[in-house]
Amino acid sequence: MAGSQNISVQTLQERVRAILEAGGVRRESAEAVAGVIVAGERDNCKSHGVYRIEGCLRVLAAGKVEGGAVPKVHDEGTSVIEVDAGGGFSNPAFHAAKDLLAERTRETGIAALVIRDCLHFSALWHDVEAMADYGLASLSMCPSYSVVAPAGGTQPLFGTNPIAFGWPRPGAHPYVWDFATSVAARGEIELHRRAGTPIPEGWAIDSDGQPTTDPDAALAGAMLPFGAHKGSAISTMVELLAGAMLGEFMSKEALEFMGSSALLPRHGALVLALDPARFAARSGRDPLAEGEKLLTAISGQGARLPSERRFAARDKALAEGICLTEAELAQLALFEQDGLAAVAT
Amino acid sequence: MAGSQNISVQTLQERVRAILEAGGVRRESAEAVAGVIVAGERDNCKSHGVYRIEGCLRVLAAGKVEGGAVPKVHDEGTSVIEVDAGGGFSNPAFHAAKDLLAERTRETGIAALVIRDCLHFSALWHDVEAMADYGLASLSMCPSYSVVAPAGGTQPLFGTNPIAFGWPRPGAHPYVWDFATSVAARGEIELHRRAGTPIPEGWAIDSDGQPTTDPDAALAGAMLPFGAHKGSAISTMVELLAGAMLGEFMSKEALEFMGSSALLPRHGALVLALDPARFAARSGRDPLAEGEKLLTAISGQGARLPSERRFAARDKALAEGICLTEAELAQLALFEQDGLAAVAT
Repeated sequence: MAGSQNISVQTLQERVRAILEAGGVRRESAEAVAGVIVAGERDNCKSHGVYRIEGCLRVLAAGKVEGGAVPKVHDEGTSVIEVDAGGGFSNPAFHAAKDLLAERTRETGIAALVIRDCLHFSALWHDVEAMADYGLASLSMCPSYSVVAPAGGTQPLFGTNPIAFGWPRPGAHPYVWDFATSVAARGEIELHRRAGTPIPEGWAIDSDGQPTTDPDAALAGAMLPFGAHKGSAISTMVELLAGAMLGEFMSKEALEFMGSSALLPRHGALVLALDPARFAARSGRDPLAEGEKLLTAISGQGARLPSERRFAARDKALAEGICLTEAELAQLALFEQDGLAAVAT
Repeated sequence: MAGSQNISVQTLQERVRAILEAGGVRRESAEAVAGVIVAGERDNCKSHGVYRIEGCLRVLAAGKVEGGAVPKVHDEGTSVIEVDAGGGFSNPAFHAAKDLLAERTRETGIAALVIRDCLHFSALWHDVEAMADYGLASLSMCPSYSVVAPAGGTQPLFGTNPIAFGWPRPGAHPYVWDFATSVAARGEIELHRRAGTPIPEGWAIDSDGQPTTDPDAALAGAMLPFGAHKGSAISTMVELLAGAMLGEFMSKEALEFMGSSALLPRHGALVLALDPARFAARSGRDPLAEGEKLLTAISGQGARLPSERRFAARDKALAEGICLTEAELAQLALFEQDGLAAVAT
């Protein structure tokens, strides 16, 4: 593309880290936040790449995130480890606790990490891939902002509530999925609005709770969960386990607290990790070799495994660098020059 | 209905238990298996009620279940408890280990129960309701027989892989969902076949992997997961966590082992339990009171909570008895009179 340019993962990491640090994020936290942004861009996961820098700067400019917060790990030796993000971004908190989570999971077979009071914007595949690097299976979930109605309901109550799962594969990228429990992303409705095209049936309801294909009516109403009542049930579980159970905000309270979905939500997050080696021990079987039987059978049918496209983009970016468009490069330069003033309102 | 009759929960429990015992199931196990069958009937969950007695007798007559197996609990003091069903039904094994699972979950915050080498036929809501009775949240899952193709695939590989979730509600029935990860149940396709009506689009593919609305072609082909690639991802997780991770059969191997989906499958099962009181402790919030905010908001929109109809049927059955049809009563009488000979082939 005209004006686009390849940039190495390491160079992009340093530039994004420096932008965040100049915005008031402590060095170590800026490194962790830049890490997930660059990983998103590297994997051609554009919705979680450099596009996210602006959202981070916006909460910094609004004074709605504690850039200097130092994550505090609380451990009482049980299977539940907690880390207080202290109103900072979620990623430094996860980073501070993940070694301990892996260690405890290996000791006890299953363990949980509670992240408290964090601002969350990153994809959850970071968490489950990190656990897979330790040879562990994991589930990660969190609430967001209430923009999704329950199946059969009429008003927004659930967040888009992402949930992710990871499973280690010997000598290969892990098996990873990560999806919103809404049928579509809010950004997809926005794209239809800009294009002046109707949204597919089943994506949303209007503010009277009636089905709609009008993007404006949908944005004023509520999105719907994927898979009808089954997806709605899973979204409810995410609110309960990653919100109510932790004593952290659910999606409705998160929106009320921040006052606008234009700013990143503040809530908690939950990661469950399981050690296949411990679970399988008495069986005499190799759990990862068993997993390969299933995963290669899926691929063998010509079905795509989730994350395959992302891993292919990653391999390419690591070899050739990350391709940024002229507009993305201009925005990076603007943030480097103007800092928080570039997003101040 | 003509010839139908109300029968008390207790009386039905005794009759079903006696039928199973006469079929070679040890007293305590027969009590547990009868318990879930009667609970299904009590909740008007006909697909898991007295209809299931025949399937239990069939595996007994075929010598494919160890009726006399005594569940053996293995506990090393970690967060993973195991119970060997010894080729018996799953329910006595769960029953033997559930107190210990609850105790360990209260100690460590999160714990898992692995059930090994069991025959499985019951709905999973039994497990998660039992955990909710202890004030615990839980997830239960197991593989089944490979009759579902992965999204984008062409051949059966996954089971209908049920997954269930439970959350305790103070002074009320718990919040419980329990569903197959296939878009429909195999029995529903069978009903269309008998009625000579086409099945809805999106339920199944034929043996060439092409979409079909013909019930016969669907039964010869494969069912599809609910929610397209998202449901397929969840079904894959069930195979990995409740099959590969435990070193127990996944759905394909379970079908190969038993040789016919007409007999109950033999595999493992996984129950994860979480203690909201421990997870929320440092927040100072009451997790169950928080959960009520969400659940009453769902109901307040006029949306139905999962299991509501089941709980209403339960309350009615406990007050008035369980209504059995003439045919169901005749079958009970036949099983009482002829025992295993009634199902011998």
